[in-house]
Amino acid sequence: MDTATKFISSGNDRLDAQLKFSAEIDKMTSILRRTLLIDGSRRENDAEHSWHIAVMALLFEEYAAEKVNILHAVEMLTVHDLVEIYAGDTFAYDTTGNATKAERENQAADRLFSMLPTEQGSHIRGLWEEFDSGKTPDAKYANCLDRIQPFFHNMLTAGHTWRNSGYTTTAAMVKKRMATVAEFMPEVYSWMEKNLDFAVKNNWLSE
Amino acid sequence: MDTATKFISSGNDRLDAQLKFSAEIDKMTSILRRTLLIDGSRRENDAEHSWHIAVMALLFEEYAAEKVNILHAVEMLTVHDLVEIYAGDTFAYDTTGNATKAERENQAADRLFSMLPTEQGSHIRGLWEEFDSGKTPDAKYANCLDRIQPFFHNMLTAGHTWRNSGYTTTAAMVKKRMATVAEFMPEVYSWMEKNLDFAVKNNWLSE
Repeated sequence: MDTATKFISSGNDRLDAQLKFSAEIDKMTSILRRTLLIDGSRRENDAEHSWHIAVMALLFEEYAAEKVNILHAVEMLTVHDLVEIYAGDTFAYDTTGNATKAERENQAADRLFSMLPTEQGSHIRGLWEEFDSGKTPDAKYANCLDRIQPFFHNMLTAGHTWRNSGYTTTAAMVKKRMATVAEFMPEVYSWMEKNLDFAVKNNWLSE
Repeated sequence: MDTATKFISSGNDRLDAQLKFSAEIDKMTSILRRTLLIDGSRRENDAEHSWHIAVMALLFEEYAAEKVNILHAVEMLTVHDLVEIYAGDTFAYDTTGNATKAERENQAADRLFSMLPTEQGSHIRGLWEEFDSGKTPDAKYANCLDRIQPFFHNMLTAGHTWRNSGYTTTAAMVKKRMATVAEFMPEVYSWMEKNLDFAVKNNWLSE
């Protein structure tokens, strides 16, 4: 469906750009992740994932190793996957996909964020870059949630992603990916370790 | 799928409660709204809707009649529909459903927010109540977005909701529902009025 042809101009170029961008990002609902919803019914999409971790960000502050500006982390999480509208979701354990991820996502960012008035595009791109660099406490916190949430979904769907991804996934690989949680949210990581033991014991993951 | 039986305790009651709440709210992905996604492929769910308006909240501040704390509005929007997990989505023009909505949603809030550590449950309930009262500038802004977004989806899907809801929907009814936008975001409302004229001309809505 071509939204542009059906769009009724407001007569204000800025408002038109903001509305068209708002329509464009609805495509996040058709970017499917490897993770299942917790009820196991279907694959989760990027819009659902982004919403879920944004709410989770309101809850886990007390486990963060450094002071976090929660609402800034929430803001970051709502936009952290927008570039996947054009770049697609790259599975964490897909080494080929990850080799080209940065370039594909940069091109996607150029295309997507240039739809907005300049300062708004820069602001949202800045949030995405902050998330992606993972250096500030807020970005570390946001990155932890982006790892805890699919891990949790995975545990509650009998290791679906690990078992069905088509990529070999070992406990060591998962631990490596969760290193940021081990560092920044150690108590949550302890819980993840118990889960990993359980997953290995159930053959959801190889050791 | 019973998440509780599969849940691995962390040994910390607070963390367990926060994780179980996080699992419970994933049910927002199966609460369907009347609105279609912009690509027309299927009905939107509450998780997608909440995410979409949270991002939109980052963009439309300049049209607000009063100073808004955008990030507080974003926070509110991420949780504004959580009670629908138990109370269901009540269609805006369903008068019977709306007569019992407050009671159903209050019961849902009691059940849902009591899953969390007390102060966190109170905080999120407070955000929902602020949104629902619609009195603070942040709540007015959030309410405007909650009306603008489905209106926009509706326009981009040839008036789907208005035509297929099973409830008579007139331009006057839509205008009444959009009164908060007319008051708080008049420039955006001017654009909506143009759209309404177009919708009536196309028989998506009766006059």
